[in-house]
Amino acid sequence: MWFHPVATGEAAVTVEAHNKPQDLTLWSTWFDPFSHRPWIALEEKQVPYQFRNTNPFLQEPSFLGVSPRGLVPALTVADGRPVNDSIIICEYIEDAFPSAPSLFPQDPYERSVVRTWVDRVNKGFVPCFFRLMQAQPTTEPEAHEKALQELYDELSAVCANWKGPFFLGEKFSLVDIAIGPWAVRDFIVERYRGFERQKVKGWTEWAEALASRPSIAKTTSEKYVEFNQTFLRNESHSRVAIAARSGRSIL
Amino acid sequence: MWFHPVATGEAAVTVEAHNKPQDLTLWSTWFDPFSHRPWIALEEKQVPYQFRNTNPFLQEPSFLGVSPRGLVPALTVADGRPVNDSIIICEYIEDAFPSAPSLFPQDPYERSVVRTWVDRVNKGFVPCFFRLMQAQPTTEPEAHEKALQELYDELSAVCANWKGPFFLGEKFSLVDIAIGPWAVRDFIVERYRGFERQKVKGWTEWAEALASRPSIAKTTSEKYVEFNQTFLRNESHSRVAIAARSGRSIL
Ligand SMILES: N[C@@H](CCC(=O)N[C@@H](CS)C(=O)NCC(=O)O)C(=O)O
Ligand SMILES: N[C@@H](CCC(=O)N[C@@H](CS)C(=O)NCC(=O)O)C(=O)O
Repeated sequence: MWFHPVATGEAAVTVEAHNKPQDLTLWSTWFDPFSHRPWIALEEKQVPYQFRNTNPFLQEPSFLGVSPRGLVPALTVADGRPVNDSIIICEYIEDAFPSAPSLFPQDPYERSVVRTWVDRVNKGFVPCFFRLMQAQPTTEPEAHEKALQELYDELSAVCANWKGPFFLGEKFSLVDIAIGPWAVRDFIVERYRGFERQKVKGWTEWAEALASRPSIAKTTSEKYVEFNQTFLRNESHSRVAIAARSGRSIL
Repeated sequence: MWFHPVATGEAAVTVEAHNKPQDLTLWSTWFDPFSHRPWIALEEKQVPYQFRNTNPFLQEPSFLGVSPRGLVPALTVADGRPVNDSIIICEYIEDAFPSAPSLFPQDPYERSVVRTWVDRVNKGFVPCFFRLMQAQPTTEPEAHEKALQELYDELSAVCANWKGPFFLGEKFSLVDIAIGPWAVRDFIVERYRGFERQKVKGWTEWAEALASRPSIAKTTSEKYVEFNQTFLRNESHSRVAIAARSGRSIL
């Protein structure tokens, strides 16, 4: 295996506390930001779940049975039926466990605002982040500069609507869950790609509020850089990497 | 103007019946399949709305005020605040008008099934449909053949989960709304691109059920082919056309 196999740091403690069979099983990869989202949602809701560390690249039959396209995360419910896609899983968790804390505001208009910015994070910020990781500052400085600027632009568009401490203000919502995994991973682009938090108004404060939210802190590992080396060399053959490289949408 | 400016056929009658100011305004383009979705949802719910025929290509200031990225559809609510994106608008309509008929089943798992297939229609079927329209059978027969096969594959994946008469069975849901606009537009690829409905198991019956659903029948125009000529010559400069051509996701 070319990457660290299991969660570390606070996340390891949380994994250990969720190693018994439950109605809900989260098929998840400790390093993967998409998998991080429903994990945060489950911790927010404090519903029982089993954490099943899954290496999607092995494409094992048991895994393909719950994720036909072979992507993490997947969530299986009591009778084994699967839910796929990180945001659709979060919406499921909200629908199935509507008791507080809700991941959405109650007002219908405000709910649409949440969905708008989740969508923008998915279609704008996330692919820009991956492309910046792939851009090689030394051998392709122009592409790197462009990717960095695009990330600043996308993150600024989201942050311009951030109220603080969380996206909607005091209320923690699905927008925070959608971007939260990157609040604990952007140190990678700081270290290797010249990204500077303070260039994006509000991001430093928001990212700090996200990183210290218990649901995020408890699910954050220590070895994200180690996993991401292949990505940083732009040698990853994961479908996310291929999609980001080609400009296609991430499924 | 290089295309027919207003709705025709049954849709013209519906537009005429919704020409008075209301709390809800649908900024919509009669020919656009994305705009067709929230229009269907409003007709399903039978909530009062004003139809505001909008040519997005003019990028008029009044329109950019409600749709910062200049895309139709947009929905404005009582105080003028906008909701953007066809599916997010439909989710808003559901949240704001929860009374029957619901666009979602009640069961949380079934709701996740609806979201899964709406997402698949958006990321799979829709870009494939546009790419097939752009593919030129005479000058690039291989690209055309490939685009046709990809459309069959994507539509078959959705139809394999169709229960009949609608996606979930008797219940009409957001999956039907997501794909419905194409059930009344696929005659274009039949006529110009060699698409055959019966190659996709279930699609003929499903498309017929969709076309005769009152909310869809009443919002369907007669001149879709006329509008789509530019697209069929692959000369459209709309952002949808550019996205489809490049393989990038449609925003
Ligand atoms: N839209 C999906 C994307 C999930 C995704 O891209 N997962 C990656 C995480 S590494 C994966 O499983 N890749 C496996 C592969 O590329 O084979 C979501 O939000 O859950
Ligand atoms: N994801 C959006 C897509 C909307 C969209 O692509 N609208 C096109 C319809 S023609 C548009 O407004 N294009 C204007 C342009 O390309 O300038 C939705 O579902 O509403």
